[in-house]
Amino acid sequence: MARTLLYLLLPTISLATEISGSWSIKQVRFGEEGSPMRAEFKVDGTKLSGSMNDWKLEGTFQNDSLVFNVVNPSGKTVAEFKGKAQGDQMAGTVVSDNEESVWKAARQTKLANTSPQTHRFEPTKFHRLFSGTIPAELRLSPGDTVITTTVDAGGVDSKGVRRSLGGNPQTGPFYVEGAMPGDTLVVKFKRIRLNRDSARSGDRITSSALTANYARNAKYEDNFNSEWKLDRQEGYASLAKPTERLKNFKVKLQPMLGCVAVAPANKQAFRTGWPGSFGGNMDYNGLREGVTVYLPVNQEGALLFVGDGHAVQGDGELNGDALETSMDVEFTVDLIRGSNTQAPRMESDEFLMASGIQNSLPEALQQATTELARWLERDYKLTANESAIVLGTSIKYDIAEVVDPQIHVVAKISKVLLETLK
Amino acid sequence: MARTLLYLLLPTISLATEISGSWSIKQVRFGEEGSPMRAEFKVDGTKLSGSMNDWKLEGTFQNDSLVFNVVNPSGKTVAEFKGKAQGDQMAGTVVSDNEESVWKAARQTKLANTSPQTHRFEPTKFHRLFSGTIPAELRLSPGDTVITTTVDAGGVDSKGVRRSLGGNPQTGPFYVEGAMPGDTLVVKFKRIRLNRDSARSGDRITSSALTANYARNAKYEDNFNSEWKLDRQEGYASLAKPTERLKNFKVKLQPMLGCVAVAPANKQAFRTGWPGSFGGNMDYNGLREGVTVYLPVNQEGALLFVGDGHAVQGDGELNGDALETSMDVEFTVDLIRGSNTQAPRMESDEFLMASGIQNSLPEALQQATTELARWLERDYKLTANESAIVLGTSIKYDIAEVVDPQIHVVAKISKVLLETLK
Amino acid sequence: MARTLLYLLLPTISLATEISGSWSIKQVRFGEEGSPMRAEFKVDGTKLSGSMNDWKLEGTFQNDSLVFNVVNPSGKTVAEFKGKAQGDQMAGTVVSDNEESVWKAARQTKLANTSPQTHRFEPTKFHRLFSGTIPAELRLSPGDTVITTTVDAGGVDSKGVRRSLGGNPQTGPFYVEGAMPGDTLVVKFKRIRLNRDSARSGDRITSSALTANYARNAKYEDNFNSEWKLDRQEGYASLAKPTERLKNFKVKLQPMLGCVAVAPANKQAFRTGWPGSFGGNMDYNGLREGVTVYLPVNQEGALLFVGDGHAVQGDGELNGDALETSMDVEFTVDLIRGSNTQAPRMESDEFLMASGIQNSLPEALQQATTELARWLERDYKLTANESAIVLGTSIKYDIAEVVDPQIHVVAKISKVLLETLK
Amino acid sequence: MARTLLYLLLPTISLATEISGSWSIKQVRFGEEGSPMRAEFKVDGTKLSGSMNDWKLEGTFQNDSLVFNVVNPSGKTVAEFKGKAQGDQMAGTVVSDNEESVWKAARQTKLANTSPQTHRFEPTKFHRLFSGTIPAELRLSPGDTVITTTVDAGGVDSKGVRRSLGGNPQTGPFYVEGAMPGDTLVVKFKRIRLNRDSARSGDRITSSALTANYARNAKYEDNFNSEWKLDRQEGYASLAKPTERLKNFKVKLQPMLGCVAVAPANKQAFRTGWPGSFGGNMDYNGLREGVTVYLPVNQEGALLFVGDGHAVQGDGELNGDALETSMDVEFTVDLIRGSNTQAPRMESDEFLMASGIQNSLPEALQQATTELARWLERDYKLTANESAIVLGTSIKYDIAEVVDPQIHVVAKISKVLLETLK
Repeated sequence: MARTLLYLLLPTISLATEISGSWSIKQVRFGEEGSPMRAEFKVDGTKLSGSMNDWKLEGTFQNDSLVFNVVNPSGKTVAEFKGKAQGDQMAGTVVSDNEESVWKAARQTKLANTSPQTHRFEPTKFHRLFSGTIPAELRLSPGDTVITTTVDAGGVDSKGVRRSLGGNPQTGPFYVEGAMPGDTLVVKFKRIRLNRDSARSGDRITSSALTANYARNAKYEDNFNSEWKLDRQEGYASLAKPTERLKNFKVKLQPMLGCVAVAPANKQAFRTGWPGSFGGNMDYNGLREGVTVYLPVNQEGALLFVGDGHAVQGDGELNGDALETSMDVEFTVDLIRGSNTQAPRMESDEFLMASGIQNSLPEALQQATTELARWLERDYKLTANESAIVLGTSIKYDIAEVVDPQIHVVAKISKVLLETLK
Repeated sequence: MARTLLYLLLPTISLATEISGSWSIKQVRFGEEGSPMRAEFKVDGTKLSGSMNDWKLEGTFQNDSLVFNVVNPSGKTVAEFKGKAQGDQMAGTVVSDNEESVWKAARQTKLANTSPQTHRFEPTKFHRLFSGTIPAELRLSPGDTVITTTVDAGGVDSKGVRRSLGGNPQTGPFYVEGAMPGDTLVVKFKRIRLNRDSARSGDRITSSALTANYARNAKYEDNFNSEWKLDRQEGYASLAKPTERLKNFKVKLQPMLGCVAVAPANKQAFRTGWPGSFGGNMDYNGLREGVTVYLPVNQEGALLFVGDGHAVQGDGELNGDALETSMDVEFTVDLIRGSNTQAPRMESDEFLMASGIQNSLPEALQQATTELARWLERDYKLTANESAIVLGTSIKYDIAEVVDPQIHVVAKISKVLLETLK
Repeated sequence: MARTLLYLLLPTISLATEISGSWSIKQVRFGEEGSPMRAEFKVDGTKLSGSMNDWKLEGTFQNDSLVFNVVNPSGKTVAEFKGKAQGDQMAGTVVSDNEESVWKAARQTKLANTSPQTHRFEPTKFHRLFSGTIPAELRLSPGDTVITTTVDAGGVDSKGVRRSLGGNPQTGPFYVEGAMPGDTLVVKFKRIRLNRDSARSGDRITSSALTANYARNAKYEDNFNSEWKLDRQEGYASLAKPTERLKNFKVKLQPMLGCVAVAPANKQAFRTGWPGSFGGNMDYNGLREGVTVYLPVNQEGALLFVGDGHAVQGDGELNGDALETSMDVEFTVDLIRGSNTQAPRMESDEFLMASGIQNSLPEALQQATTELARWLERDYKLTANESAIVLGTSIKYDIAEVVDPQIHVVAKISKVLLETLK
Repeated sequence: MARTLLYLLLPTISLATEISGSWSIKQVRFGEEGSPMRAEFKVDGTKLSGSMNDWKLEGTFQNDSLVFNVVNPSGKTVAEFKGKAQGDQMAGTVVSDNEESVWKAARQTKLANTSPQTHRFEPTKFHRLFSGTIPAELRLSPGDTVITTTVDAGGVDSKGVRRSLGGNPQTGPFYVEGAMPGDTLVVKFKRIRLNRDSARSGDRITSSALTANYARNAKYEDNFNSEWKLDRQEGYASLAKPTERLKNFKVKLQPMLGCVAVAPANKQAFRTGWPGSFGGNMDYNGLREGVTVYLPVNQEGALLFVGDGHAVQGDGELNGDALETSMDVEFTVDLIRGSNTQAPRMESDEFLMASGIQNSLPEALQQATTELARWLERDYKLTANESAIVLGTSIKYDIAEVVDPQIHVVAKISKVLLETLK
């Protein structure tokens, strides 16, 4: 793209511009917009300083024109920017790695310094893709709380009305002001509560969790009735029309959300059956009321999705469908700048929990262990030997699910134990 | 082998013999003794009846000579036996599958009808192979109790004296009278208690539980001191010479046995680092005082081994060595006829636990799930759908260990829950 | 969606319409368009007959209004359609499974009955997502041939000019007239030829193909020069600036395409580093000039992508980057109605080749074996035992790649051998 | 063990002894004999020098008493030996790591300096365990050739006579004079030839190589006849009683040996269905006439086993049983001192082949790749980057078998290509 073209990217009104503050800046290379970076500019006379992600920037700003270099932590100049500012936008050229390309920037909305709001959100559309191209349904500021509902995995709501096609239709997405790639989105679930008295589950164990011999010879009935009655008063689920053998079988309700997601990285779009580094269909029975979920942000606004409530689910979600039901949900969002992780993390009153979401059980366990070790090493300043000592004695694993396109293992450690490391 | 040779297998003293009772019978084919079977003979006049494992037998017995057919549950004759009895031994020929071979039998020791005994056994030799060729150190009757000790994985006893080379040296083996292939050995651990104040652990996480990137870049110290002090009074372990960061780190003692084994099948011999269908180095932190272990018997007498105590171990035994220490152990043995399983099972006050011990995590999970489903289907008469309903809501997995030649996953279910199925 | 709304979906011009012929028909449920189906209508007086995918349809057509039932192969009515036709469009309501929804249809372009065309296509844009939302660059009819070029994995063309960001930028997509979900797209590669004299490769083996011990201890140089010189005359590649030990090392050129893809199913979008059932980044060194690729069509027009040429690649693509280079490519497209497969298939003069593209090596091998068995069972009418006999003696596996988000194994069998089965 | 006891280990005849030469020396710790080491002693006056495995030794020898230190390559004394020699035996005490233990040594048989012999060996016993405790049937010197036969996997010989129970009964074991742990046994197969006209194979694909869906639904016939006719003249196998569809199916004979083994390490004993680092049931269709096998020696004499001939086998040995048949075999043994590897290696006219024999396909591939990289790095002095360049372009994998207790993958590279590295 030639240099003269860049002015087309700018609005034509011209006013003296004050550029101090936060901007979202993107390179445009070979016609493709890159991932946005957070730039902080500070103007002092004509002196320009500030930062771009973890790097420093320094240069000059005069007559709406800016020139600055970006310097990495070792003090080396990694890119040379030139450009012009007009109102809330800027554009220009940048040379890095001997290649010239175009950049543009937009001023980040200053978050209103008001107290956090609580939004009651009644969903009318549901989404069956985790994708950053879906328009946000609601914009949230960090600290805001959302009270909403989710339909069940088949699209049925609390009144038994089908509202969507099946496959884990999601409520949202919610845009979180100020969220940038590299940040961590914090979602604290204050309520995950049942809102109806019925659920439906699978009635066969997935063959991938059985020996070939059992799977080949199991005598399954085609018309087994696996509708459930949820006794919210007493806190138990039982089959609505049980077989003779299961007529007294009842299991404790432990409501959880199968899906909590941000938009995936790199403009990808995955069916809402997928878990991944973006969260998604994690199907973890530990993701219950009171738990905080940390997700790595992949695009501006993060785009939060929630859905797929389960009244109760055993480890592994062996039947493919747990006790699928609709849910009342209340959560508060927040942001941590940077601190990005390779996979979701969670925290309850009792545990730090690091997810491994990978192609296979061994790989999921490897990622979960590694992410928990890194968590300890970062937050408690442990060496590799020290985290081995702590985890070797005290790590616990949960096999979250083995039925989705990727496998989910959680490595966790008691927060009481970690008190001794402070 | 020619027919005439078979008499060489018999003692030469000849007396009229009463053959009613239990015998251990083996085929000898191509010079190789087969696995023994339990035969029950009943003589009524010259009429011979009884059983061989799950099959019926019928024939005649006269003048120390016996002739009988073995009939399978569908009523088909599967083998024709002829032979002679002398005292506590018999021998003869058998035709099955159009092939003639030799058989021999020995009378099973009648278990004394006395009350169970308690043996105090002070080990003097330790064994580093799980093998059926090691002579038994002690013979036990079902119901008997053994009070003994184990040395730690490196061979050091409660007094800090090295008694054996390392690699999980075992106490035993113990011969259990009456145990036959196909039976289930029951070992109830009444005590698994620490008997000294020190342990030693690994100080690095096994690379198979870490991402390649972490494993490649971890900065491990070569001389990290991972000796532990065990405070038996207070019930905590802490590093004997902790680093600054770990000086307040202490972890609750949860004494367990890493190894409980019978002799492996088919005359195989495995290093005592191996777990398998014979139990062995299972390294499960749930195998603690109060737990009953069920192991499939592979040869006469079963040959029970115990060893490899851990003061505490996280899931997976990530550091290769947990807090290795010597142990005081007390257990009672018993036998269940038949009911053989493909892998070890365990039972605590709280859980039924089915082991999957296989080459990889997915295969171990498959076996554990399958064995737990089969347990429910056998003992609670559930159909495949019904066990899917029960396990889908309520199964829990423990990743026992990921560092041994085979991987161990435990699938478990609450016994309280199972009360509703009765 | 209310019934009255459906007329908004139709154009307002009204003419008597002849509906005989091929249509693409979609259900719209809960505001979401379903996957299109191929409908064939035939009008005889007011009698309407025809088919929808594998089902029959029958009904009446009068005054632009049509009413018909869809009947499955067992003769059961599975859906009841009502609607109106206007020109090349139709719309209406459908009741199936007791649920009423909306449908719409568009007449399929009749393929011109002209002889196949050859298109010279000079790409100007390159795409780094496999996605059905990317506008087609060129529309092809079955039988047409395309002569085009691909840039290398880093976006550099035959003249050494960078044309795109890296990550396997693709040429295309090409829309194939008449392609419908359930069909098979046939792509015969007549030429896959080098068009420049340089390539660049990785210089380290991926840690996932090495033991942890080797990976941890390998002494890699940071500045190893892995640029290659391609001698197209002699047919060999050698390092451009070889180390002393490799100064005579040369390896035979075997040009191949890493990527051949259709749009993924279910509106998903994957980075062009992904292989999958849609083909994609298969990185198979057997995908060379002369090979025909069969891909399952997921959306109308299929949307064909090609890219990621390799001058030569060992099994597994161990270094992550093979000898990445730009390529001259010529291929002919064709369609097979139905015959959809779960994964890509290929065919050379010598072999039938079935791909398994899955999360892990064992799963990829399972899929490849199964797809090859199914191929034999379908095309040669073999029973399961017979395909076991043929494959048990004669199957060959290629480990295509172990470095992408999914693993690719190819199961193949000699076509000469299959001659005996005809 | 007290010091005074050591003299009991020595013969009582006393003569002045000349100890120069090769000895096999073992430590006895806690009553357990360690693995033997090769010691070379040289006496010059009273000065004693020599080596023990890779370490130097130095000391004095006088009046049948010897005192020497063992020094590691960094010049540090790692053990202090004292002892007495009598004839062909020695014994004494050794202090190492602050622990005193007993040692004993036996003079190694000097290999007769005669020309290599050819032994015709007619097996009469067959063995179904790979175990170092089985007495050798024949003692070979390096360079010797053995002409013998193997029975098929079910124990049937060339005349159709059953000679053993099934499960890969082995011919041998053969003791190789001078072989010591750490050495490499070289077995060059000059002939692997069919000696009868029939074989029998499995008729179902193992479920571990199929998708669960295929495995669950495959319609297998219980009485499929999978006996084969081997046309040794024409070089083809065909079903003896083919189904209509397979009546013209014939497949080229490619005789191979499934099993070539040494005794496993650490006194373990594995069923002859096991492959492992000791070779064993490798089931690789590339192990054919003309191939040389390299196996790591685990005990004195190595103990070589051969068996399990296949007339032809597809990759993976999918049917569990390939075309199982008896075989005429001729091989020459040799020894390489040291150069021990972690897994078997093979060499043909065309390829260097490194085996990976591990619990799972990914781990087998990792080991095979690593062992081939190490082979290149050792023999061609390549750096890690250089071996990545060579293997990244040119490695080929064979999936040898996926049906045994461990999985076998072969990584191979063309010897022609390696010529350029010399």
